[in-house]
Amino acid sequence: MAHLRIALAQTNPVTGDLPANTAKLLDRTRQAAAGGAHLVVFTEMFLTGYPVEDLALRSSFVDASIAALEQAAVRLAEEGLGEVAVVVGHLDRARSGTGRTPRPGLPAGAPLDAAALLHRGAVVTRTAKHHLQNYGVFDERRYFVRGDRLPIFRLHGVDVAVAICEDLWQEGGPVTVAGQAGAGLLVVPNASPYERGKDDARLELVARRAREAGCALAYVNQVGGQDELVFDGASIVVGADGELVARAAQFREELLLVDLDLPAGGAEPGRTVHDAGDGSAITVDRFVLSGEPVTIGSPVAPPIAPRLDDLAGVYAALVLAVRDYVAKNGFESVVLALSGGIDSALTATIASDAIGPERVHVVLMPSRHSSGHSVTDAEELVRRQGVTAHLAPINGIVTAFEKEIDLTGAAAENLQARVRGMALMGLSNEHGHLVLTTGNKSELATGYSTLYGDSAGGFAPIKDVPKTMVWALARWRNSHTDDWFRMDVARPVPEHSITKEPSAELRPDQCDTDSLPPYEVLDPLLDDYVENDLGPAGLIAAGHDPALVARVIRLVDLAEHKRRRHPPGPKITPKNFGRDRRLPVTNRWSETT
Amino acid sequence: MAHLRIALAQTNPVTGDLPANTAKLLDRTRQAAAGGAHLVVFTEMFLTGYPVEDLALRSSFVDASIAALEQAAVRLAEEGLGEVAVVVGHLDRARSGTGRTPRPGLPAGAPLDAAALLHRGAVVTRTAKHHLQNYGVFDERRYFVRGDRLPIFRLHGVDVAVAICEDLWQEGGPVTVAGQAGAGLLVVPNASPYERGKDDARLELVARRAREAGCALAYVNQVGGQDELVFDGASIVVGADGELVARAAQFREELLLVDLDLPAGGAEPGRTVHDAGDGSAITVDRFVLSGEPVTIGSPVAPPIAPRLDDLAGVYAALVLAVRDYVAKNGFESVVLALSGGIDSALTATIASDAIGPERVHVVLMPSRHSSGHSVTDAEELVRRQGVTAHLAPINGIVTAFEKEIDLTGAAAENLQARVRGMALMGLSNEHGHLVLTTGNKSELATGYSTLYGDSAGGFAPIKDVPKTMVWALARWRNSHTDDWFRMDVARPVPEHSITKEPSAELRPDQCDTDSLPPYEVLDPLLDDYVENDLGPAGLIAAGHDPALVARVIRLVDLAEHKRRRHPPGPKITPKNFGRDRRLPVTNRWSETT
Repeated sequence: MAHLRIALAQTNPVTGDLPANTAKLLDRTRQAAAGGAHLVVFTEMFLTGYPVEDLALRSSFVDASIAALEQAAVRLAEEGLGEVAVVVGHLDRARSGTGRTPRPGLPAGAPLDAAALLHRGAVVTRTAKHHLQNYGVFDERRYFVRGDRLPIFRLHGVDVAVAICEDLWQEGGPVTVAGQAGAGLLVVPNASPYERGKDDARLELVARRAREAGCALAYVNQVGGQDELVFDGASIVVGADGELVARAAQFREELLLVDLDLPAGGAEPGRTVHDAGDGSAITVDRFVLSGEPVTIGSPVAPPIAPRLDDLAGVYAALVLAVRDYVAKNGFESVVLALSGGIDSALTATIASDAIGPERVHVVLMPSRHSSGHSVTDAEELVRRQGVTAHLAPINGIVTAFEKEIDLTGAAAENLQARVRGMALMGLSNEHGHLVLTTGNKSELATGYSTLYGDSAGGFAPIKDVPKTMVWALARWRNSHTDDWFRMDVARPVPEHSITKEPSAELRPDQCDTDSLPPYEVLDPLLDDYVENDLGPAGLIAAGHDPALVARVIRLVDLAEHKRRRHPPGPKITPKNFGRDRRLPVTNRWSETT
Repeated sequence: MAHLRIALAQTNPVTGDLPANTAKLLDRTRQAAAGGAHLVVFTEMFLTGYPVEDLALRSSFVDASIAALEQAAVRLAEEGLGEVAVVVGHLDRARSGTGRTPRPGLPAGAPLDAAALLHRGAVVTRTAKHHLQNYGVFDERRYFVRGDRLPIFRLHGVDVAVAICEDLWQEGGPVTVAGQAGAGLLVVPNASPYERGKDDARLELVARRAREAGCALAYVNQVGGQDELVFDGASIVVGADGELVARAAQFREELLLVDLDLPAGGAEPGRTVHDAGDGSAITVDRFVLSGEPVTIGSPVAPPIAPRLDDLAGVYAALVLAVRDYVAKNGFESVVLALSGGIDSALTATIASDAIGPERVHVVLMPSRHSSGHSVTDAEELVRRQGVTAHLAPINGIVTAFEKEIDLTGAAAENLQARVRGMALMGLSNEHGHLVLTTGNKSELATGYSTLYGDSAGGFAPIKDVPKTMVWALARWRNSHTDDWFRMDVARPVPEHSITKEPSAELRPDQCDTDSLPPYEVLDPLLDDYVENDLGPAGLIAAGHDPALVARVIRLVDLAEHKRRRHPPGPKITPKNFGRDRRLPVTNRWSETT
């Protein structure tokens, strides 16, 4: 039996910012070394951030990633950290000698979703993801060629293998080969986006793969927001029996130190070719960094962070997404329209918790159709949270408009929403605020929103949150003030905003239920249609009203062109209307035809 | 030597409209039979339209495509057309018995980009695309699993093989195997989008593949607009020596009848497995529809349609794209802002040629900064083309706005553009017009446009046309009135709109060159950066001014968020800013850092 202290660097990279990510690599390795770690494992493509999308196809960017990797190895050694083994994800390219030649139809420049081992000032070995995922939000066969190696390095007597993210999720490949090769520890850099309930699936998967490979497994996940994706961390270590050994927190950076007792490796260095069980062959490349075992004087107690419950998880994801979208895009402040309704109240609350109420600007823009409580409820929120408020009645602008162009019905309703959108964009251009839109998923799904009106803006925090969950999150937040993020304001959402009848207030006495079924009926139907992909027959069999099924499918299918123009927003479900549901706009197909 | 009369059905399907596409299949087959054809070849995924994007992942849609195919075979026979062999593209799914089992990581439901042979009321055989393309605008590895068959059917003594589109573009695979198997004719359904200059590349490729396979080759291409893609037809037939035998016109439907003298096939029916030369094996499945040779009494003269020159091709692509976007999305009319400048003048002209001036509505919206000629030049265009004009001065609206919200500089300029966008959207909502935006590629690239202002709308006809080409197209159109589309108005673009200094007219005495380099300098630089993917060093080596290179790269990279919210528009180059250039919005990488 040998011993290792490993550090899982659960980190929040900035996409494309190689110097900042390199600085973080040095910082975390420094911390890990100070904590006595022998091995630090970073996340998938940590040096570049993940996903980089078409940047992977720019050779200058690939060059920069490779140069940053090599410089990082040198700088670690210069700082006296060369003895720590560092596994880090980066963007690489396949080259002659790797056993793969790019073929026609593969991405230009043969980029690799790679991971490297840095030790004693050098890049000791490189590997690349074997299973490329190409579903949902992922397009990896567009960007990467497949890796076909499994490096196994001996560190203080332990044979450590490296696989990457999706390599865990598919059958065969590096995990199978790690088992054949008798690895003592499998370390896996990941960038696995948050989804409601996914945490369970991950632990189960990691435990199963550890048992398959017959070795302990360290799963290190990215954290932070990147456009529509939110990465939640929750890195885990399991034993060879699949039992949970340690878990990091969700939605925050952490350096998780874990002491492991592991079998000593004995195989000779060199290369062997293995049947990967998925129709491909993988070359195992074994080498030795150090055979000498270490003893660990005062073992650390492995922390097992508690899991957030469902609403806490969703709320944390939204807050982190907003915070990172603001910060990583260089904004200092946000602006949004506060209507007195629940959607804008929740959005303002998320923004306050994300970046502090002093950086949140709200604009109250009552129209001739606004109720009295629309202003008083909004003012109550301003008072509770301490955000900066502006009042800008829109009636004069709407009237001036109507003098030039005659609009009626929905066109006149949309005009009011567009005047508000224009006001927000004007304030954004003048003061540099990021505009947050306040539309929820139920509205976005059914097209109950105005193109260039309430959908005008830079980021849509509750885009993937159904209306019924908007209310639930507001209630949840009103009963929590713990130390997640900056949730220091108690009861930030006015109760009347939660309890009152929802209305767009774009015509006299309007209610959402004039146009839509009650949200308690609509939301489960939308979930079954959008997330569970049921067709009309399946929806009716699931108990939904047949007439409503036909109507809602038509609404959803017709609203595709609006969703395309909507700003990005954090995903909390496997299929929202973001980049993972790509329908033609010009399309005559409907499930109901 | 045997003989065949083949018909290439160069068609314009409507995506998702299975009944309409089936009706067109019957109609074209009827015409082909009346013309004495023995074989009709339709385009790639003709029954569903191409591309169907995530519809491929909906099992109800795959079911509907398969059912439509089977019904089409029956209906052809019922109409007495059963003796004609019909090759048609459709959406299928892999099933047991095809020799492929879907694996984890492959698309759900194992969809196939398929083609079938219909004969005597039955679906005689099915095949599927072998080479899936996953670059540029294509995502086929997201949607499809790979085919591994090559059907060869004997028709009147000729052995006819079927491959699909990308199978021609990559080395090895069905073409190689068709050569090994001694096919007498290779028919290839395609959906190959238009690109400037691609026509040459296609003919060269088809000729090369015909020589490789040692047989004649019939290349049948889709025509029509589908969101950002424009398919240009230009179907071709080449002999086994690669010589051009026949070519259909570009940008219009055509049924191209061609008589071919072909070698008689002699191999026995049955299956053989072949090394496809690309690391895979392909099963050849031979069968006989009819061994009896036919004689062709009065041969048809094979037409070779002349090619459009560069500007004519671009103009035709833009007109067809607008016409199809309007029609296929069920619009009756379009509306756009007419400023007196060249961009809106060209856009109006394209729209008039696409759907007729009587369905084109233009709005003149002068502001306090508009020059006198902005209205007179616009009025001159209205007079020349006979479009419907509305005058709506925006000064009163802007003033009402400024009373509520204080805006200066660029924010005040944007306000004017947004008031105009809002007016167009209001008219669209009130009257059902599709809003056309008028921004060109040079503006879109550099971010010289207003989010929710001039970029608000449903379709962007000149999105991929650089400013210098906007002028060139206007001049070209003013000197052409031939029978392309509805180009019956002579000199539709006022000369002063072409010759005057470009200006956004959002502040006093503004010129484009206040913010941008002259377009004669900017456009070649944008082309080298965006289309040719040169980095800073490459751009400077190509002769561009170093300071300008750095400035333009920054402008282009920073404008990504605006382009994401822009409406779709027809692509005329390999890489515009549509779905084929997918950069993260949150991204700190710049070529200049």
